[in-house]
Amino acid sequence: MPAQPYPLLIKQLLVTPIQQASSAEIVYRERRHSYPEFITRIARLGSALTALGARPGMRIAVLDWDSHRYLECYFAIPMLGAVLMTANPRLSPEQLLYTLDHSGAEILLVHPDFIPLVEGIRARLPKLRALIALPDDGVIPPGFLCAGEYEALLAEADPGFVFAEFDENTTATQFYTTGTTGHPKGVSFSHRQIVLHTLALMANVMLASRNGRLSRETVYLPITPMFHVHAWGIPYLATLAGMKQVYPGRYTPAGIAAIFAREGVTFSHCVPTILNMLLAAPEFRDLDLSRWQVIIGGSAFPRGLAEAALARGIDAYAGYGMSETCPVLSLAQLKPGLADDDAVRARTSAGLPSVFVELQVVDEAMNPLPRDGAHAGEVVARAPHLTAGYVGNDAASEALWAGGWLHTGDIGVIGADGYLRITDRAKDVIKTGGEWVSSLDLEDLVSRHPDVGEVAVIGVTDAKWGERPMALVVAKPGHAIDPESVRRYLFAEAEKGVISRFAVPERIECVEALDKTSVGKLDKKRLRARFGGA
Amino acid sequence: MPAQPYPLLIKQLLVTPIQQASSAEIVYRERRHSYPEFITRIARLGSALTALGARPGMRIAVLDWDSHRYLECYFAIPMLGAVLMTANPRLSPEQLLYTLDHSGAEILLVHPDFIPLVEGIRARLPKLRALIALPDDGVIPPGFLCAGEYEALLAEADPGFVFAEFDENTTATQFYTTGTTGHPKGVSFSHRQIVLHTLALMANVMLASRNGRLSRETVYLPITPMFHVHAWGIPYLATLAGMKQVYPGRYTPAGIAAIFAREGVTFSHCVPTILNMLLAAPEFRDLDLSRWQVIIGGSAFPRGLAEAALARGIDAYAGYGMSETCPVLSLAQLKPGLADDDAVRARTSAGLPSVFVELQVVDEAMNPLPRDGAHAGEVVARAPHLTAGYVGNDAASEALWAGGWLHTGDIGVIGADGYLRITDRAKDVIKTGGEWVSSLDLEDLVSRHPDVGEVAVIGVTDAKWGERPMALVVAKPGHAIDPESVRRYLFAEAEKGVISRFAVPERIECVEALDKTSVGKLDKKRLRARFGGA
Repeated sequence: MPAQPYPLLIKQLLVTPIQQASSAEIVYRERRHSYPEFITRIARLGSALTALGARPGMRIAVLDWDSHRYLECYFAIPMLGAVLMTANPRLSPEQLLYTLDHSGAEILLVHPDFIPLVEGIRARLPKLRALIALPDDGVIPPGFLCAGEYEALLAEADPGFVFAEFDENTTATQFYTTGTTGHPKGVSFSHRQIVLHTLALMANVMLASRNGRLSRETVYLPITPMFHVHAWGIPYLATLAGMKQVYPGRYTPAGIAAIFAREGVTFSHCVPTILNMLLAAPEFRDLDLSRWQVIIGGSAFPRGLAEAALARGIDAYAGYGMSETCPVLSLAQLKPGLADDDAVRARTSAGLPSVFVELQVVDEAMNPLPRDGAHAGEVVARAPHLTAGYVGNDAASEALWAGGWLHTGDIGVIGADGYLRITDRAKDVIKTGGEWVSSLDLEDLVSRHPDVGEVAVIGVTDAKWGERPMALVVAKPGHAIDPESVRRYLFAEAEKGVISRFAVPERIECVEALDKTSVGKLDKKRLRARFGGA
Repeated sequence: MPAQPYPLLIKQLLVTPIQQASSAEIVYRERRHSYPEFITRIARLGSALTALGARPGMRIAVLDWDSHRYLECYFAIPMLGAVLMTANPRLSPEQLLYTLDHSGAEILLVHPDFIPLVEGIRARLPKLRALIALPDDGVIPPGFLCAGEYEALLAEADPGFVFAEFDENTTATQFYTTGTTGHPKGVSFSHRQIVLHTLALMANVMLASRNGRLSRETVYLPITPMFHVHAWGIPYLATLAGMKQVYPGRYTPAGIAAIFAREGVTFSHCVPTILNMLLAAPEFRDLDLSRWQVIIGGSAFPRGLAEAALARGIDAYAGYGMSETCPVLSLAQLKPGLADDDAVRARTSAGLPSVFVELQVVDEAMNPLPRDGAHAGEVVARAPHLTAGYVGNDAASEALWAGGWLHTGDIGVIGADGYLRITDRAKDVIKTGGEWVSSLDLEDLVSRHPDVGEVAVIGVTDAKWGERPMALVVAKPGHAIDPESVRRYLFAEAEKGVISRFAVPERIECVEALDKTSVGKLDKKRLRARFGGA
């Protein structure tokens, strides 16, 4: 047949904004690029990288704040048939060294803020053949040996560079998840997987009625780092949709507030900690947030934070996924007919499985458990966009895909209404007197106490019960926490049947701050090490 | 890698309504099926067809009005690895015979209304091994020899039937386009193509802001026959979205009006003739149509009809595509910032290219023409969901894909704003005095005359100018048309610069009715035969 084949390639995501003649801009600081300019810059970047020796299969790493440059790398690097390696600057130098070395990165694009980090490990990265500097002011920091400055390289490159077509199963991206034990593990995604993740996510957004709607008129500001699982895949969606996109650089509440007001932002996504920080920032106090839609992911969305966000008029709701899943598995869209209280509960659940995603909760023998909102088990998934396994780690890959389903390591329940609720990370489960207590349910409840700013619940060793839950709490600015008042509040909730009396922690400890991982999640391993043995 | 492969199969479209626990129903007459019931019925149909000898690759044909049964066939037949052949009951018996024979259909599901048609050709279909009757009342018409009645066969079949997985490039559907010359030509689509058409269409609906939004709360009533290009692919979209779906059976204005009011319909699609008929029907006079969204396709959307629809509060806009394209190529969503008059013009254009669709207008040497709203040329397309060619017709397939693009046979212009406007079918082009006159522009204009109900403009032979346009007009009910009044109106429009004076037809003829093809489009070939030689 003479038909043109149509592989699912990342470059196809650029067809529609041009075909629909989007007049939106891609904004970073003073830079404003139209979509045609953006696409010409992608061609220039492809040309510049090729001149530096880029070839299909090569790993090309990026260390940058969220910027127009990073977005250009999201496209140009995979469009060369090379692999975009999104390096994590929050890792320890040794972990960063491990991931760059393990990926075999040969070219590294690096922002000046991360040059000291890179200089410290550069001598131990023999495969690295070229570095590109990403200064915002166009000036290469003195003494930094590199192939050139990003904008200068683009200016010299060929704007007519043509990207070849190739097999849609070609690897497009690779990055590393930081487990709580051992080395970081690499996951990778193919062009086909990223295109299908984008399409399925857009199809799922189409389903939205009461909350979670987007359109070509949406103004997008990511507040999730772009090194973190493709910034949840949303930059690809925003590009295909031809949206106005605003990249914030390094996050500061004042900087985000200024962009928000200036650019008319209507859509963001972030972890709970960031939303909490923004809502508490003085710069956000007088902003009209009533047209802002925010997807909360990375950690459970505490009900207290959800209520604070809704009170400001924000359309805030949770998403669920992980590095291994590209990442979106589910979104907390509201179904028709939910009463207000049920709607808040739905918004803070992990949500409804996204288009093409199959989720089950299973027992230890992989038997599916009833969808009754009561039976808790491990959440396992199937979808077209899940990583095939961990790069170069067959044993971990086999465990990830045991029984033909991807194992999330999360414990959850699925309701008859389809909503998934995560009750714990499998490794954070608290088993006390033979019963499971959900640390996330407890955190959710404690977060609603009027004095509590942040909370973590961990299991601590107990001679009689095996383990007991313990709550670590951080007070809201200007508040002080009386642990007994929190306990009284929890017992009152237990009287109402919200939790079991047995779940109320004996120990509620006030701390200055909670330990976090490199991507801003509660580091319960560390918290258990600090408090759990007591 | 141990990951589960994920082929793009039609059966995956059933994952999400179950995962999201849709509580919507699929309705036909008194029948109301939940999504779980619908999926069990698909399993039963797969089991029943297998018992009758269905196997991968077999062509299985359907002749039915739009019904729950037809929707079940949309899934069960391709899910067996067999090919759904959607036969066209509006063809002449000889054409129907040709298409059934050419496809090699071995099983035929037939509604009693079409049994006389089938009985007349059955003896000349030696490959046909089994027929299934589709009566609404459960009674097989006396004397009709068949393998059984649909509901009875389902009742006896296995509700636990499991559909195998197979290659996503397996053919799923096949049907015939009726050209104006020669035999009907068969086109076919793979599972991958139908899944990608569904996802891309949903992604495109996500982009909608002012018009054309859908959600899981949409109530869907198709008014395009299901034998016609998968009813534009919308039943697959509606199913994946878990929408309430209402199937109307044989179309009558009274029947559609009753369903509309009873079921709370919010979304339909149809050809202009049908919308015209419904708006004129007394049963529609008092209905509140202000929550109704209607996509108009199959023929150009005349401005007069668009204004009448908008006056009733209908969100009416055009779609564009053809049998060869699965079919959606573009949708007339409104971009931000259009003034009212421009918005009507946008709604009646062919619209913006849908997600992943690349459209160009080209000259005869396949050079792309400027996107300036002025340069007219043939519209050619690329997309993941275009037919690979005509079944068993290499010469026509080569012509369809000449130069690596699918040739639509339509003449159009693309504006700088991305909107495509079709000015003619290539074969309907009117060339007069060396200049092209757009028959569609003229029809659009004439349709706005207060007395005109329907209009067709054709080219008629002219000794001096080669060809001249001629308008054939049908009066609105209760109106009479004075051709001179229409000419005066057209000259007034020419004064305003809307058309050239040279485009105003000398001949404007009042007729009782306009010839239509089997899918309700103007049959200009026939009209030219009747009037063109004069």
